[in-house]
Parts: sequence; structure tokens; C-alpha cells
Amino acid sequence: MKTDFTPYYAVIFTSIQTEDTEGYAEMAEQMENLAKDQTGFISIDSARNAIGITVSYWESLEAIQQWKQHTDHLVAQQKGIKNWYAYYNVKICKVEREYSFEK
Amino acid sequence: MKTDFTPYYAVIFTSIQTEDTEGYAEMAEQMENLAKDQTGFISIDSARNAIGITVSYWESLEAIQQWKQHTDHLVAQQKGIKNWYAYYNVKICKVEREYSFEK
Repeated sequence: MKTDFTPYYAVIFTSIQTEDTEGYAEMAEQMENLAKDQTGFISIDSARNAIGITVSYWESLEAIQQWKQHTDHLVAQQKGIKNWYAYYNVKICKVEREYSFEK
Repeated sequence: MKTDFTPYYAVIFTSIQTEDTEGYAEMAEQMENLAKDQTGFISIDSARNAIGITVSYWESLEAIQQWKQHTDHLVAQQKGIKNWYAYYNVKICKVEREYSFEK
């Protein structure tokens, strides 16, 4: 285990969509781009089949809190609740260690 | 914030596949079923587009370590490195809080 590992945070967003997907893809792209501009943002990964999983990584809990309260993001969250999501779950996690493989 | 929240652990497995997908889907299903049988397993979510994201949830770091070292899982990991994965990253995380929405 590396001793110089600096903990950071992951937000695991898991969702199931409704049948109303109008405007969703555009908003998702817009929010991803906006997230990337925020202080403390590290990276983001997304995939969707029956379930959608988006994991964003942040330097601190403060950065996550600020992103959650961002005005444009609040508008997107309200539209998500009203139209696009049948279900979602948000988990705030501390990344404690990691390892990678690359061919 | 709920005061009765019991922390648990997430393993975020992010991967990019090679062109060799022979046997992959069967193995992935087999490993998911095997994981579900392990002590300390809670749940698992998967989605794949350009990138694959699988997040499994566990009651303890010991349960994660035991699953990592499970004989059949070690065989699958070796095949993954040899054939199926161009890249993967594993992050061990402590889930500190969460919230859900359901329509």
C-alpha cells in the first residue's frame, strides 16, 4: 500500500429513468461540462444500460456540497425529479485506496 | 443527516475492454452470482458503454479482501488481464452517507 496516497471523494449516482427522456441527454452533457469547471473536481465516469451509473470524483466534501448547491445544477436536479428519474440514489464515499492495470 | 447510518464499503471497478470479448459475458455473470454468495456482500450494480462501471457494496474491508482472494475470482482476474481488459481501475471506498429519491 502506498503511503503517499491522498484520500479523495467519490459521488456514486445510480439512477433508473422514466420513459420521458426529452432533453435529458443535453442536460446530462451540460451538467458534466459544468461539473468539470468546478473547484475541486477531479474526474467523472458514466455508463447506462438498464441502470445508469455516474461516478464523479472530488478533492473534498466541501467541493461536493458546493456542486450540489450550484444554481444551474439545482435546476437540473428539479427537472430530474419532475421528469427524468423514476429512482436515484446518491452515495458520498471516501476513496481509501486504489490500483490500476493497463495493457 | 441520519445518526444511525452504518458505514459500509464500495468497490468501484472501472474498465475498458479489448476486442477479445469471447467468454467475457458468461464469466461476468458467473462472478456476479459468486460475489452474491460471499459473506459480507450487500449488492452490485453494473453498466457498460464505452467504459464499464461495476460497483459492488460490502459490509467490511475483510469481506472485500476475501472476495479478491477467492480462488475462482483469481482465475477470472487472470483471464481478465490476459484477454478481456485493456485497462481497469479498482477503488476501495468507504460509503459515508447516502440519500435516495423514488417516484
